[in-house]
Amino acid sequence: MAIRFYNARILSFEDGMNVTFGEVHTDGGLISYAGDGENAPKGSFEREINLNGNLIMPSFKNAHTHSAMTFLRSYADDMPLQDWLFKQVFPMEAKLTGDDIYTFSKIAFAEYLTSGITANFDMYFEPEYMAKVSEEVGFRTVMCGSVAGSADECDAALTKLETLYNKYKDRSEFVSYRLGFHAEYTTDVSIINGIGELAKKYKAPVYTHNSETLSETKECAERHGLTPTELFERAGLFEYGGGGFHCVYMSDNDLEIFRRRGVWAVTNPGSNAKLASGIAPLEKMAEKGIKLAIGTDGAASNNALDMFREMYLAAVLQKILLKDAAAMQADKILRMAVCGSANAMGLENCDTIKKGNKADLIVVDLNAPNMRPLHNIPKNLVYSGSKQNILITMCAGKILYENGEFTTIDLEKTYAEADIALKRMINE
Amino acid sequence: MAIRFYNARILSFEDGMNVTFGEVHTDGGLISYAGDGENAPKGSFEREINLNGNLIMPSFKNAHTHSAMTFLRSYADDMPLQDWLFKQVFPMEAKLTGDDIYTFSKIAFAEYLTSGITANFDMYFEPEYMAKVSEEVGFRTVMCGSVAGSADECDAALTKLETLYNKYKDRSEFVSYRLGFHAEYTTDVSIINGIGELAKKYKAPVYTHNSETLSETKECAERHGLTPTELFERAGLFEYGGGGFHCVYMSDNDLEIFRRRGVWAVTNPGSNAKLASGIAPLEKMAEKGIKLAIGTDGAASNNALDMFREMYLAAVLQKILLKDAAAMQADKILRMAVCGSANAMGLENCDTIKKGNKADLIVVDLNAPNMRPLHNIPKNLVYSGSKQNILITMCAGKILYENGEFTTIDLEKTYAEADIALKRMINE
Repeated sequence: MAIRFYNARILSFEDGMNVTFGEVHTDGGLISYAGDGENAPKGSFEREINLNGNLIMPSFKNAHTHSAMTFLRSYADDMPLQDWLFKQVFPMEAKLTGDDIYTFSKIAFAEYLTSGITANFDMYFEPEYMAKVSEEVGFRTVMCGSVAGSADECDAALTKLETLYNKYKDRSEFVSYRLGFHAEYTTDVSIINGIGELAKKYKAPVYTHNSETLSETKECAERHGLTPTELFERAGLFEYGGGGFHCVYMSDNDLEIFRRRGVWAVTNPGSNAKLASGIAPLEKMAEKGIKLAIGTDGAASNNALDMFREMYLAAVLQKILLKDAAAMQADKILRMAVCGSANAMGLENCDTIKKGNKADLIVVDLNAPNMRPLHNIPKNLVYSGSKQNILITMCAGKILYENGEFTTIDLEKTYAEADIALKRMINE
Repeated sequence: MAIRFYNARILSFEDGMNVTFGEVHTDGGLISYAGDGENAPKGSFEREINLNGNLIMPSFKNAHTHSAMTFLRSYADDMPLQDWLFKQVFPMEAKLTGDDIYTFSKIAFAEYLTSGITANFDMYFEPEYMAKVSEEVGFRTVMCGSVAGSADECDAALTKLETLYNKYKDRSEFVSYRLGFHAEYTTDVSIINGIGELAKKYKAPVYTHNSETLSETKECAERHGLTPTELFERAGLFEYGGGGFHCVYMSDNDLEIFRRRGVWAVTNPGSNAKLASGIAPLEKMAEKGIKLAIGTDGAASNNALDMFREMYLAAVLQKILLKDAAAMQADKILRMAVCGSANAMGLENCDTIKKGNKADLIVVDLNAPNMRPLHNIPKNLVYSGSKQNILITMCAGKILYENGEFTTIDLEKTYAEADIALKRMINE
């Protein structure tokens, strides 16, 4: 399907934060033109959309989440982390079926779309159901290996990870898979070392939760005399890059390993704030040249799946942390959420607007009062922007969300399935 | 105009955080019925609105702001506070006319309405223009005295404040006025003491910026050997209550004064975060029984005027500050934004849904994905709620905002006026 967006302000991310006027055309899943209106090819389009000066830009990508955890949103909040995880989350999670994961991921996808997100780097279970919901909705999912376990479970875990990796790594336009595991504190070192072997075998990056809480890093030091990052480096996990989710408690040596290996630090400021985990040292990481991306984490901890909120928090929490209003400028944050996150999860050609890139795009309402005046559009996006401003979310050239309506998700049916599933889980 | 909302979930704030099913009727500016559907009076209505299970609740009130400062949104960000204030804000502010204040306040009012806010406690200039825009839009403004100055300007400042107070304190349904001044650091102690006399003369509460930054409290101690709160107490400002905006750096004695005098602490977490001022000790204040309210501050510093963002920040910043995920529970925050803020600025009978109270109401979309599942509606509102969920905002029985449209604001005309004003100011 060919679509023409005209009378557009364009923030392409190809030319700093420069905003130009013109047109963007899509053809099938790709961008076929981006530039001024005068030189735009005429062509024939299935739809021509007058943006009336509104903004078109590449969509946001969510570089760390557990989509299906919408099932626990507001189920247990305002409680200490250990109680939350062991008394509330784990017992409920044990009851989830593949169908439940399908249903609750779909609620998350709908929420992502309302916030202009077109891709998620999802660490959860039941990849077949995740693949199914992603392809049905037309929403990109990069699945992240989520194995964990004791030394006894080492062989099984590694076999499972390698099998899933090979089965899903090139599954489809919408679904791929990366090597990964849950975290140091849930995964025996034998498994971690084995994953290092897989990284070498497949020349592949590896992703995991890393240094999310102070107790995690302390306990790792007690167990291994190393930080999680040092342990992962020793295991050879990062020979082909990869990423750490959260990265709140990072030593200077950890940062140096990240920099040298080109490992992505994926920040999750909302989840870290709500669980009182802390504030990741983004400004320091940026200064050291560490690659930065951003994610929402799951709805059980965040509780929203809203890139506007995450961007705002990523900026202002650095200002609080460093007692410096000039810390972590808005432009850097915006680039993290659009380009950084796409690249962190290994999505190609969907980080900027240019001919040939994937048509993963959003239209932002600049006529809403929170976006006025237009002194500085990137700063408006980060500091006063809201998911309310998302008029259109397009993934792979198809409009999935427009003016509050979803084109590939039946919300009512999904909510009905979710209610049945929750009733079963709560009564089980 | 009589309106019937039916098939509603009702969060009345009359019964804890209990959500019931039923109907809410309005007649003129007041609530004429709130209760179950069976016993609802039949009556005749100009409109009957089927909420399909969506939520109706009292609107949010914004207990501290400078509405017209939308003119500086994203004009100067990511810079140190002193540069921001003296090089960017003050020179531009000096160019504002009354008409400009009318126009840019209207942009703010539109933004408030998108976020479910129906009243603002506004500290700015040109009260006649503020009154005009409030009455035209049908939006409540409690104006807060904003005098400041040196000892030489004492008589003039006090005369001005007293004159404006008498002129506007009972202006209309939508407009009133409270005694107030800018801040200790901009106001000579002779003026502050004089305002203490006015407080006694009129048996009236007094409001001001209080202990927003560390440097403010340090410099006050150097000047007076007292904290700002102690200085205000000595001046007799709080004999009839009042409030402090921000309240980030509060000594134990300050808190005791606030508690004893029943002074409202109005928190502005977004502005304090973005300007790197710090985190107000809300949990500690709540434990001491200090009355709490919440405001957005102006768009020049925040930069959004969004009560959902403020509520979320008020909650999670306490969790970070205290390293305790159980700190500052969602219910408390929600009550601050609805009831606390109304009461802080002295608005009567618009804090809960009950017969005879003012019809200042919002309808919240519970069918949006970020509000699902419905495990806990108050927690959803605070932790995953968004201005995107506001379907209807009603003030004084009149719907001012519905499904993205404004009934009393011509946005296009307002933006055109704003653009002309900005061009003038920037070129002056």
